Amino acid sequence: MINEDTICAISTAPGTGGIAVVRISGTEAISICNKLFIPHTKGKDLFKQKAYTLSYGVIRKNDEDLDNVLIALFHAPHSFTGEDTVEITCHGSIYIQQQIIKLLVDNGCRLAHPGEYTERAFLNGKMDLSQAEAVADLIASTSAGQHRLAINQMRGGFSNELKTLREQLLHITSLMELELDFSDHEDVEFADRSELKTLAGHIETVISHLADSFSTGNAIKNGVPVAIIGETNTGKSTLLNVLLNEEKAIVSDIQGTTRDAIEDTMNIQGILFRFIDTAGIRETHDAIETIGIERTFNKLDQADIVLWIIDSSDAGRQIEELSGKIFPHCKGKQLIIVFNKIDLIDKNLTTISERLPESVQSICISAKHKSNIHELQDLLVQVANIPALSSNDIIVTNIRHYEALKHALDSIRRVQSGLACDLSGDFISQDLRECIFYLSDIVGEVTTDQVLGNIFSKFCIGK
Amino acid sequence: MINEDTICAISTAPGTGGIAVVRISGTEAISICNKLFIPHTKGKDLFKQKAYTLSYGVIRKNDEDLDNVLIALFHAPHSFTGEDTVEITCHGSIYIQQQIIKLLVDNGCRLAHPGEYTERAFLNGKMDLSQAEAVADLIASTSAGQHRLAINQMRGGFSNELKTLREQLLHITSLMELELDFSDHEDVEFADRSELKTLAGHIETVISHLADSFSTGNAIKNGVPVAIIGETNTGKSTLLNVLLNEEKAIVSDIQGTTRDAIEDTMNIQGILFRFIDTAGIRETHDAIETIGIERTFNKLDQADIVLWIIDSSDAGRQIEELSGKIFPHCKGKQLIIVFNKIDLIDKNLTTISERLPESVQSICISAKHKSNIHELQDLLVQVANIPALSSNDIIVTNIRHYEALKHALDSIRRVQSGLACDLSGDFISQDLRECIFYLSDIVGEVTTDQVLGNIFSKFCIGK
Repeated sequence: MINEDTICAISTAPGTGGIAVVRISGTEAISICNKLFIPHTKGKDLFKQKAYTLSYGVIRKNDEDLDNVLIALFHAPHSFTGEDTVEITCHGSIYIQQQIIKLLVDNGCRLAHPGEYTERAFLNGKMDLSQAEAVADLIASTSAGQHRLAINQMRGGFSNELKTLREQLLHITSLMELELDFSDHEDVEFADRSELKTLAGHIETVISHLADSFSTGNAIKNGVPVAIIGETNTGKSTLLNVLLNEEKAIVSDIQGTTRDAIEDTMNIQGILFRFIDTAGIRETHDAIETIGIERTFNKLDQADIVLWIIDSSDAGRQIEELSGKIFPHCKGKQLIIVFNKIDLIDKNLTTISERLPESVQSICISAKHKSNIHELQDLLVQVANIPALSSNDIIVTNIRHYEALKHALDSIRRVQSGLACDLSGDFISQDLRECIFYLSDIVGEVTTDQVLGNIFSKFCIGK
Repeated sequence: MINEDTICAISTAPGTGGIAVVRISGTEAISICNKLFIPHTKGKDLFKQKAYTLSYGVIRKNDEDLDNVLIALFHAPHSFTGEDTVEITCHGSIYIQQQIIKLLVDNGCRLAHPGEYTERAFLNGKMDLSQAEAVADLIASTSAGQHRLAINQMRGGFSNELKTLREQLLHITSLMELELDFSDHEDVEFADRSELKTLAGHIETVISHLADSFSTGNAIKNGVPVAIIGETNTGKSTLLNVLLNEEKAIVSDIQGTTRDAIEDTMNIQGILFRFIDTAGIRETHDAIETIGIERTFNKLDQADIVLWIIDSSDAGRQIEELSGKIFPHCKGKQLIIVFNKIDLIDKNLTTISERLPESVQSICISAKHKSNIHELQDLLVQVANIPALSSNDIIVTNIRHYEALKHALDSIRRVQSGLACDLSGDFISQDLRECIFYLSDIVGEVTTDQVLGNIFSKFCIGK
């Protein structure tokens, strides 16, 4: 068991700040810190402090003061990890942060692996695996939607749903297996088959609903994919920059925070959009150019929304030449035609718009003069059609969970067909057990060390 | 007074981390946080919690959970600022950090200005101005030397020294002024002039010693300036990269910390060196090239140490041609001749080294093969000649303090010459008051709002 070591790490963001927090967890956490800490109030060492208190004092190294610190104390099992935990709040210089970590390591701590605090919380039964995974999602969340899904999952919404399902499945299984024990007596049928069918049908509906929610969950977590296409020089990159700058302006309203630069991803009205860059389309007979255009069309396949940017001063020709190529690639997608450079023309585009198929929406903007940009954003949000989620909605956002749900769905469907054709109880029971296995995998009850290693290695150090 | 507002800011480093800390300070700190916080233990609201305790619970926004948080409580005057203070430890997502700040602002907090917490600590008498300035130095410190000076200053070493000086000066002043009150009685001389002379001499020694310490303090704080010069293609930038990489390797031993990239500044054995880049020197008759070389020599003036890099395979010629130009520019500096590419030659350079002036040190290295780099580092540390400081040494590191000390020194020297030529008490008294004024300026007793504004605006937000 890895739980024997006492681990330490800087838990706040890397770099210089006003303050930083170093977290120490494990059986020796309090005794190691107590050796290094001189409390401000004499005699008040950490062993004499109650849990959930703060102690002010000095961390000393080789008889020299390293820093004035606050020490927060947590006693097992009432801490995040479930172990004895000490959090040292120090001044946020990189030098001090490094020195405190060095000092802790010199005194018997081990540097924590990425996600090791959360892994310990999981191993010590403080949360299940889907909740632990939600901790990483919560920290990575940059939009209201991502945040809401992560916090709901972390608080156990999804886990409770799975627990109910597993209880129902176990109920059927136990009835089926009781029946098997009495299989000599042909006429015994503990499990009322029609009741079983109803229950299996209900479980299938719930699992399939959860699996279906992944497309919404994925759009919220990874962003709604939007392709921007059009001829060269229609203003695609100007538009992208305008949209990105709008967002930056909002973000920088709040001082003291910086934004991780994610190329071409932006948050519009709480919904994350992921913009897919494409090469400009040109009518060409050049073989190499044609390959480039093929690539552009292939990229369309990844998109849910397509923004086709058209230079308004030349709208008729572009629509005539390209519609035949673009429309077939946009089946099942939301296509928005964006008439850019609207300031350059005086006629209006009503006649052109009217000739477009009904499924195609259009909007007139000027990226350069930033006119109608908010209307375009509204339109994007509208066609993204992300359902308004309440904090209680259960939405699957994790591909590992989605895959387990797909397997569980296959199993429960085999149960259903088994019941339908009166298959013998032992076959059905095996499919039921398989379904339970996949649901248990999500909460980490049957998960292998390798899978655990995979999950936690993606966390940041210090969490 | 600015102290009426309740202020909030993210106090940990900007960006995503495992956790982040939001600090709220002011009379409304507890009541504002209490409105947003649902404690895990029912009924245990923040007003019922003792100071120096942690409360676990949830921050809510519009009936939705924003995050699970820990709340640390401090009651005035027993906090960093001296005011009621709440520290919210939340998950370190940028989204959550922003939302908590927004929520606090919506509920009556104001965003803190840079350094405003420390400014309040100063205004509320928790520390004097030189201690407050040391907080910023402590956070910015990247080497053991910088750190030691900052923590000593923060803990009041310098302030105590100044306090002693001011008490002595006030003692003289009061005697001088008492004398003035009785100036009608010609023979009254309360202040024993020879005693005054001794005391003024002592004060002059201490102030002058403090002012002199600034050259050491400045070298420790801003780095010892080192110019690397030499002909083109002698390996100057290879050497610089090798030195920088050595340091990076040491720094990255400690996981979870990143280093602020400071171009060409490096920490060697706890001493900071600041490398000054120069253009390669070439023998030339071209007017423009000559200007470039002039610039190189001008840059030498900023350096305390000069590393002259010479290609070993061509050492004799380079020394012959350039010595006459370089040596005169290195008066009062430490010149080290670095014979690079030592691997390319089989003869040794003893005869050349022997012809160098005694004051010039030399070393043979290969930057490319990283041989003798540690010896070069040792040599740099040796010639930097930074005195080994104990934690009690008082070293001036701040240019504002240095300038005030220079003024104080002028004043006390005028006092000395006044005493020497039996100047009347009222003139001497005025110089004494001036000396006290400048020393008081350092600890912030007579400092103007504008100076305060200048000082604290250089802090980071959240401290």
